[in-house]
Amino acid sequence: MVGGARAVARCDELGAAPYSDARGMLFRAYLTPGFAATQRALAGWMQEAGMATRIDEACNLIGRYEGSRPDVPALILGSHIDSVRDAGRYDGPLGVMLAIEVVAALHAAGRRMPFPIEVYAFGDEEGSRFPVAMLTSRAVAGSLDPAMLETEDRTGLSLDEALAPFELSTLRFAEARHPGALGYLEAHIEQGPTLEAAGLPVGIVSGIAAQLRYSVAVTGIAGHAGTTSMGLRRDALAAAAEMVLAVEDVARRDASDLVATVGKLDVAPGAGNVIPGQVTFTLDIRAGDQARRDAAAEAILDRIHAIADIRHVDFDIQRTNDLAAAPCDGRLSGLLEASVAALGIAPFSLVSGAGHDAMILAALCPTAMLFIRCRGGVSHNPAEHVAPEDAEIALQVMLGFLDRLGARYAA
Amino acid sequence: MVGGARAVARCDELGAAPYSDARGMLFRAYLTPGFAATQRALAGWMQEAGMATRIDEACNLIGRYEGSRPDVPALILGSHIDSVRDAGRYDGPLGVMLAIEVVAALHAAGRRMPFPIEVYAFGDEEGSRFPVAMLTSRAVAGSLDPAMLETEDRTGLSLDEALAPFELSTLRFAEARHPGALGYLEAHIEQGPTLEAAGLPVGIVSGIAAQLRYSVAVTGIAGHAGTTSMGLRRDALAAAAEMVLAVEDVARRDASDLVATVGKLDVAPGAGNVIPGQVTFTLDIRAGDQARRDAAAEAILDRIHAIADIRHVDFDIQRTNDLAAAPCDGRLSGLLEASVAALGIAPFSLVSGAGHDAMILAALCPTAMLFIRCRGGVSHNPAEHVAPEDAEIALQVMLGFLDRLGARYAA
Repeated sequence: MVGGARAVARCDELGAAPYSDARGMLFRAYLTPGFAATQRALAGWMQEAGMATRIDEACNLIGRYEGSRPDVPALILGSHIDSVRDAGRYDGPLGVMLAIEVVAALHAAGRRMPFPIEVYAFGDEEGSRFPVAMLTSRAVAGSLDPAMLETEDRTGLSLDEALAPFELSTLRFAEARHPGALGYLEAHIEQGPTLEAAGLPVGIVSGIAAQLRYSVAVTGIAGHAGTTSMGLRRDALAAAAEMVLAVEDVARRDASDLVATVGKLDVAPGAGNVIPGQVTFTLDIRAGDQARRDAAAEAILDRIHAIADIRHVDFDIQRTNDLAAAPCDGRLSGLLEASVAALGIAPFSLVSGAGHDAMILAALCPTAMLFIRCRGGVSHNPAEHVAPEDAEIALQVMLGFLDRLGARYAA
Repeated sequence: MVGGARAVARCDELGAAPYSDARGMLFRAYLTPGFAATQRALAGWMQEAGMATRIDEACNLIGRYEGSRPDVPALILGSHIDSVRDAGRYDGPLGVMLAIEVVAALHAAGRRMPFPIEVYAFGDEEGSRFPVAMLTSRAVAGSLDPAMLETEDRTGLSLDEALAPFELSTLRFAEARHPGALGYLEAHIEQGPTLEAAGLPVGIVSGIAAQLRYSVAVTGIAGHAGTTSMGLRRDALAAAAEMVLAVEDVARRDASDLVATVGKLDVAPGAGNVIPGQVTFTLDIRAGDQARRDAAAEAILDRIHAIADIRHVDFDIQRTNDLAAAPCDGRLSGLLEASVAALGIAPFSLVSGAGHDAMILAALCPTAMLFIRCRGGVSHNPAEHVAPEDAEIALQVMLGFLDRLGARYAA
């Protein structure tokens, strides 16, 4: 088995132990044992495909396939290998597997491009372990804020402590910065229903939606559930529930691509017979248009403020992430369009609601993204599904892209 | 120091390590190391007060002070020593400490009552470790459903496994059943604001409110927070938020002593960038009047059903507890009233919104409860506070109660 089918099968193989850290589901967080096992498997596949492998200071795995011209910088292909909890198997890994297949195809044909190809398996994109997402692509792009490295996971383990078993340290993390690349191409499942609805296997990403993330803490007064009359309560959960519905309401009123989500919510002390004293929750707001996103965020924060006032609870809001909208490079996207059209498929452009390493890499070099159709638009869910035929088409588009880009550097 | 002040001081002493299992707060769950340390401290104090101590098959600590007449069954005094998470120091332990002070006073005076006195430090009242509350008083009262013993804590440890380090087993748990008692008297902080508002240090409990507890699971569809448009979502948390507010609304519309609380709520998968697929929460409903309680429960379940229908999410509701209203014994309560009046304090009766071991012991013998004023009605909260003077008054009432009860058995 080779090509798109093998890329999908390899994602499936990485979907369970020892490549997952949770029993009965896929959960592969940055720097866990399952993560290390995944890097070892990938390194083997990269070497089979003719690449030299190394792990950089941010614990990204990199496979390099040399080019024929020493003066041309590398083209980076890649995606991420970490996952959310109870994840699907393709969000991230499929892009890495397809990048390996691209090089495997060149290697099998004895071909070299004018430029070197570097396949990056990014370590942290989801923010599945530490509060800050896309730590490792930020390091590569050189856009890392050193304060981001002073972070701890849920268990209180610091990033520095998590890096130690890999013989890495936050002190040298920023040295993962890339010296400068020709471009970055990422293949990724769409994670939405648009391509399926259009009846198309692949689409070209015109840009990535702007994101805002907040952490909200609501503080009421804990009390005995049996003895505190309803009128005297300052129930942090009831207040937070109103805020969750306000988030939904503001997003629903906006008829555009804007979405807002409370994905994580924790209640303290969290016992059936105790009125909740504190609730913390996350807030995630995205839109293709940055102004629209910011207007929604302001409306939501106003509503949270009003709810807290009426209920006499305190609240604290921290902005944990602010990612600007990231347009993809027109020239590279044009090469993707030509490659899609050459296969007899209508080139289709769409905005990505999900964040991707590509939006970070845009600070380093021109970027392009190819979306692959996934069934029902389902993602971040074990039911995530990609057809091997669609993965094969994506691979052919990527090879077409290489040919077209290579032609520009022909000696 | 002796008497009420010592009882309060001992509660304070038990409020931190090694008697708590959580750093920086009081959390003493049934059968933990902090629980065992607490039993050891209490056994020492019981022995100083002239009692013989033992631990029964349900891991209750019992101190026994013999009486002068071998034909009269024991009077039980007591309360519980487990706590909720981030608890106050008096909810439970104060009743045990006052019971020890009662016996210490008799012992110091070289007095014996006609009946033996047994001081019970019940192991599990709050349900703070296993889903079922009041496991240990149920065993003593003989009202245990054997199915309740097939239970696990949050970490998946079974009750049987948790008992093993104490050389106990669920196989013999029911043998903790008491052979028959004269009565049960429990002193406990009010955990509400009524006595403070009335300007009274103590009150006599006329009965304990009826309780219902449910576990509710809401199942939507998990999905990517950036790519699933608002209209296509089946967000389990948004649905649960509406249910939390419906619970509050139904309880607020009832102008009686009825209260309803969602105290625990867990979100899965629980990541900032994933639409929640499942939410589980607890529901606790209490009222002095059982019919009113049941009507509120029905109204809440109807609202939950309607919300799930409109939002196209699934739900499952399990009733985890149904405690009938438990009136206290009129004759024993009369002895308390006479003892309060003899101190020049107006006897004041009130319903308890909180559940207590006394409501379980009612299946074994006549019961009475004495409530002690607590500041601001605050409980299940580290700010819980009892004045030593109020504890001293409670002690004097308990001693008066003993004298009056003893007079009935005078040879």
